[in-house]
Amino acid sequence: MTIEELIEAARGGSTRATGRLLSLAESPRRTEVLEAIGPVDPPRVIGVTGPPGAGKSTTVGVLVGAYRQREERVAVLAVDPSSPYSGGALLGDRIRMAAHINDPGVLIRSVAARGHLGGLAAAVPASLQVLAALSYGLVVLETVGVGQSEIEIAAVADPTIVILNPGAGDAVQAAKAGLLEVADIVVVNKADRDGADQTVRDLHAETSAPILKLIAAQGEGIDELMEAIAAHHRSDSPQRRAARARSQILSLAQSLLRTHPELDRLADAVAEGRDDVYAAAERLFGVPLNP
Amino acid sequence: MTIEELIEAARGGSTRATGRLLSLAESPRRTEVLEAIGPVDPPRVIGVTGPPGAGKSTTVGVLVGAYRQREERVAVLAVDPSSPYSGGALLGDRIRMAAHINDPGVLIRSVAARGHLGGLAAAVPASLQVLAALSYGLVVLETVGVGQSEIEIAAVADPTIVILNPGAGDAVQAAKAGLLEVADIVVVNKADRDGADQTVRDLHAETSAPILKLIAAQGEGIDELMEAIAAHHRSDSPQRRAARARSQILSLAQSLLRTHPELDRLADAVAEGRDDVYAAAERLFGVPLNP
Repeated sequence: MTIEELIEAARGGSTRATGRLLSLAESPRRTEVLEAIGPVDPPRVIGVTGPPGAGKSTTVGVLVGAYRQREERVAVLAVDPSSPYSGGALLGDRIRMAAHINDPGVLIRSVAARGHLGGLAAAVPASLQVLAALSYGLVVLETVGVGQSEIEIAAVADPTIVILNPGAGDAVQAAKAGLLEVADIVVVNKADRDGADQTVRDLHAETSAPILKLIAAQGEGIDELMEAIAAHHRSDSPQRRAARARSQILSLAQSLLRTHPELDRLADAVAEGRDDVYAAAERLFGVPLNP
Repeated sequence: MTIEELIEAARGGSTRATGRLLSLAESPRRTEVLEAIGPVDPPRVIGVTGPPGAGKSTTVGVLVGAYRQREERVAVLAVDPSSPYSGGALLGDRIRMAAHINDPGVLIRSVAARGHLGGLAAAVPASLQVLAALSYGLVVLETVGVGQSEIEIAAVADPTIVILNPGAGDAVQAAKAGLLEVADIVVVNKADRDGADQTVRDLHAETSAPILKLIAAQGEGIDELMEAIAAHHRSDSPQRRAARARSQILSLAQSLLRTHPELDRLADAVAEGRDDVYAAAERLFGVPLNP
């Protein structure tokens, strides 16, 4: 099938064609896919991140259910920078998402970051464009809460929701890892456990983002979370859109840098004393830059 | 004074002129400084990193003393990405270095990373070139053991020495933070404490780098550390020099990216749907790149 045929089949409901298109969007052939799709309004993107075991997948499952009741088509992109498709964590996530597996209005996709930093940055914007073209107006991006991926997620997602549990451990770790800095909404899940109120108070000292209590497994607090997400979407602005675009461009440009065709030649020249490192860095850009 | 006059004064022994030159090397005027200096053989650079309290400064102090006995001129660049010059940690470091303060063959300098990631990457190579021009053949780069700075240090330093203490805590934290990945030599300092041998065994499971025991405060193990450093220098190769150059170029190029004059305009174009993020990222490079 050509890419045009795949798009037609995917629009007709073929999950297989959709999967193929998303795989192409993650590959170097993404340019062809994006050209075939053409301009399309970006989907709303909700980022969900947090430490393992915090209840991210349960929350995503409940959110998806709530959006489906409003008849929105929802895609879930589960990003795991460390594991390939068959990884244990993703398998677990998929089981939790089982309620939605036979719903044609829900798409669940694992995005493998392919072991290098640029993978996620390069794959996600194209995947979002494909999903928008297939009428998924809402995309939930779920990541495990480790390092760089959160920052890149935050660049794409709006809002970024950080999910933690009661107790000092999660909150302190999240603050240390810089997770709270990217949070637009903080959720204390399993809020029926001891110490939930104290955790909320502790978090208020660390972040100015709204902090919500949730018991995802029972659906308690989901309405408030949906309203916080909607409020965040309503308050979006050209400035925030430009800031997100800037972060996405930077993230992609950094992955292009690492595969720049001139890099090895320049490194040899610097190592042999034929070029200085500042001039070499500028040469990667083809044009002189500001000092 | 002109830059040429500063260089002459610094070569004549003026610590004030040296300080001015190094400040210029950390500023956007570094290009002028580097042009005035001209080509110069790079100094040997020893990186010392590790968690707070591990004994980095004590070790650096003892190493400096040992190299001074061999009549080598040594510069210490203390890099602290989080604190300005007056920070508590650096003050403590300086007190520990007091033994060398009146020795004209030793230069001690705090490099402020100025709060942004590119600061260190941009400042250090120019500082090294200034120091080499002032006949400091050996530079010790000391960083606090937190995150990105270690990776950038590792790009410049050869060898990178990671200093830990006995006990599971340091070793596990170092492994988690990726500190061991950049280690060319691992030092277990305060090796007279309980558990030092066990820590060495644990570390052997995590890294193939040589692991040495040290009691820096008493000078025990310094000869072995000096020999390990010398062995590392002897085994340097064009491939390793090229790899270091590559990392330095990338590190600088990433800081140039963040201040690229076209970035804001491109971000607006992407945010308004007039450009796609992949094309925008490529435009930053002036020439088309590999997919």
